[in-house]
Amino acid sequence: MDNDQPSTDDTPAGDAAATGRRILDAAPAEFSEAGLAGGRVGRIAARARANQRMIYAYFGSKDGLFEAVLTEKVLQAQNAVVFDAEDLSGYACQIFDFYRAHPHLVRLNLWQALERPDLLKSLAPVERAMADKVAGIAAAQAAGKVSTALPAERVLDLVLSLTYGNVAQAGNAAAWTDDQRAALATAVTRLTSPR
Amino acid sequence: MDNDQPSTDDTPAGDAAATGRRILDAAPAEFSEAGLAGGRVGRIAARARANQRMIYAYFGSKDGLFEAVLTEKVLQAQNAVVFDAEDLSGYACQIFDFYRAHPHLVRLNLWQALERPDLLKSLAPVERAMADKVAGIAAAQAAGKVSTALPAERVLDLVLSLTYGNVAQAGNAAAWTDDQRAALATAVTRLTSPR
Repeated sequence: MDNDQPSTDDTPAGDAAATGRRILDAAPAEFSEAGLAGGRVGRIAARARANQRMIYAYFGSKDGLFEAVLTEKVLQAQNAVVFDAEDLSGYACQIFDFYRAHPHLVRLNLWQALERPDLLKSLAPVERAMADKVAGIAAAQAAGKVSTALPAERVLDLVLSLTYGNVAQAGNAAAWTDDQRAALATAVTRLTSPR
Repeated sequence: MDNDQPSTDDTPAGDAAATGRRILDAAPAEFSEAGLAGGRVGRIAARARANQRMIYAYFGSKDGLFEAVLTEKVLQAQNAVVFDAEDLSGYACQIFDFYRAHPHLVRLNLWQALERPDLLKSLAPVERAMADKVAGIAAAQAAGKVSTALPAERVLDLVLSLTYGNVAQAGNAAAWTDDQRAALATAVTRLTSPR
């Protein structure tokens, strides 16, 4: 049903790379809406003005495309915020703002939690970025800038828990409020400041 | 394909009620595994040893059954824990323990967040239970037992955020650790205790 879009698969290499890019740009909306099992390769191909065959050629499978999308989007979120272990409240608020502006990316994370619960952990760049942050928090703790009441790894995990918020509301980040943001800043400060 | 189970739909009223009960008991596993869109009424009927027609007769639709399951399970979770506004850390640990023992119920909540984001809010008993808790926290704040740094409604929301934890790990509550539980207790105490 989606095969009547213009075919762009029999094109020179430069165009082929552009096709891969268009597929990666088209896929998040579909996966965010319908998830991995529910997402339709045909709809992604139609949105990308590509042939379905190209999706399999580039990404191996729908799973492979989902993994590529998740990796890119998690790194995009990480690059959009400045991590400062001595200002974890500011860090949390930046993430909050990023996801409020990109609510479909929270949905992607939720689908991942349900449909590929081990995926994020298995992505080397994500793993590395998290390890760097934990090391930064540990250093800030050693310098007396962050409370030592909790291990650094748990500090990061709990700050992120506060930021994403109650699971029941996570599906609609566009509805997050300024009051929630102010409460988040207060909560992270209480959780992490040395006394 | 699921129609070869024993049919139990043409039975007296007592058995009909039992059939409804079996459907409600069979549905959570299917919805927890595959979600609302992905869950199959035929598989639920097979597990319940009921005819698919009975599901529509009792619950109107797959959506109606999903809503009935969510309502029952959220109330079950609420009844499994004792809420004490003056011991929010103990409250959080009880929820943590409940979901660690029933990881498929966290998955149900995640599916709900994605596929019916307004459902929980619209359920009167859930709404009432939350309002009662907020009132209890406000009273504990007035009595000097809980910090007034945050409004009571935000206290409840953030305690639950800490309890469910980082969304990326929420899909596998069976893997939650004792270290996480200890950190949760410390975090809730830091967040809520008066200084």
